[in-house]
Amino acid sequence: MLYTSESLELLVEELAQLPGIGRKTAQRLAMYIMKLPREEVVNIAKAMVGVKDKVKNCSICSNFTEDDPCLICSSPKRDGSMICVVEDPNDVIAIEKTNEFIGLYHVLGGSLSPLDGIGPEDIKVKELLHRINENTGEIILALNPNVEGEATTLYLSRLLKPLGLKVTRIARGIPVGGDLEFTDEATLSRAIEGRVQI
Amino acid sequence: MLYTSESLELLVEELAQLPGIGRKTAQRLAMYIMKLPREEVVNIAKAMVGVKDKVKNCSICSNFTEDDPCLICSSPKRDGSMICVVEDPNDVIAIEKTNEFIGLYHVLGGSLSPLDGIGPEDIKVKELLHRINENTGEIILALNPNVEGEATTLYLSRLLKPLGLKVTRIARGIPVGGDLEFTDEATLSRAIEGRVQI
Repeated sequence: MLYTSESLELLVEELAQLPGIGRKTAQRLAMYIMKLPREEVVNIAKAMVGVKDKVKNCSICSNFTEDDPCLICSSPKRDGSMICVVEDPNDVIAIEKTNEFIGLYHVLGGSLSPLDGIGPEDIKVKELLHRINENTGEIILALNPNVEGEATTLYLSRLLKPLGLKVTRIARGIPVGGDLEFTDEATLSRAIEGRVQI
Repeated sequence: MLYTSESLELLVEELAQLPGIGRKTAQRLAMYIMKLPREEVVNIAKAMVGVKDKVKNCSICSNFTEDDPCLICSSPKRDGSMICVVEDPNDVIAIEKTNEFIGLYHVLGGSLSPLDGIGPEDIKVKELLHRINENTGEIILALNPNVEGEATTLYLSRLLKPLGLKVTRIARGIPVGGDLEFTDEATLSRAIEGRVQI
């Protein structure tokens, strides 16, 4: 018997299930929660259940939202002629932070990975095709620069180009603040390939 | 607007308040929670509020417990003649893991720290003195080997020795698996000081 309380043991176990939280961290968090006022603990607990109850996927772009369609899809300020295709809702947040993009998004909910048995029917490809209309001018593919992301980019570009759309992908190159000397060869060769006139 | 959902934003904010959890980790956790079945999220939330509702401090040793007195204080198997004094409930768990100690505990709830305005009346010193009776044979001081812990050890030993008790402290020395060469001077000098005959 390590803990003199079953509730405490249970909380440590529940917390240790979360990603990136080991048993030691879970124990530290549990002790912290023990010391918080009850009201604040209830707030955290409510926030957790709240996302499950309120947040759903937008029926248009599949991003997380409370209103359907989501605030981006229903905003008159966004440019409906551009659709940026991403893997996850997190990617939408990352792009929104740049303030660079004013178009709409399409969240695939993953990328093609034949080894894991994830094919085009497992991600929101069909939904993307359904969204395309005479208004759509450009599809920006913003998938992760790894094997699965590359495969998805290739697959989607082959699918979309015959529809007469402008299909682009975000640039791969040296990250800002990065060091040419320490950049890996693949990135550097993409950076040279993707050079732009100044 | 980064998040298309207020609930999600709220959850990230609530999680980011926890110790050792920054905004990025909070975001990752929130996304993970979004993907969990509702039932499991409710379990985590219930476990959090559960500790606040069920767990209290043992009226004898001040350790966290659901039953009063706690399972250790009320166990007939424990040796009531020994009391191990620690700072936090976490320290009880650490010592219980060793299976080395069969006596009782006393959780001070901190250590003396005049700079932070924490004096003997702010930690459970009075309660320790109240517990001592003709049964008590040895008090083991197991405080952290830092300035505050040392001060508390010194203070308690001066307080307890005149009562005719055996007062001991846990050994300071080279940790098991440690390297003599890389051990700091203070630890090494304590290790030499505390050498034992073989």
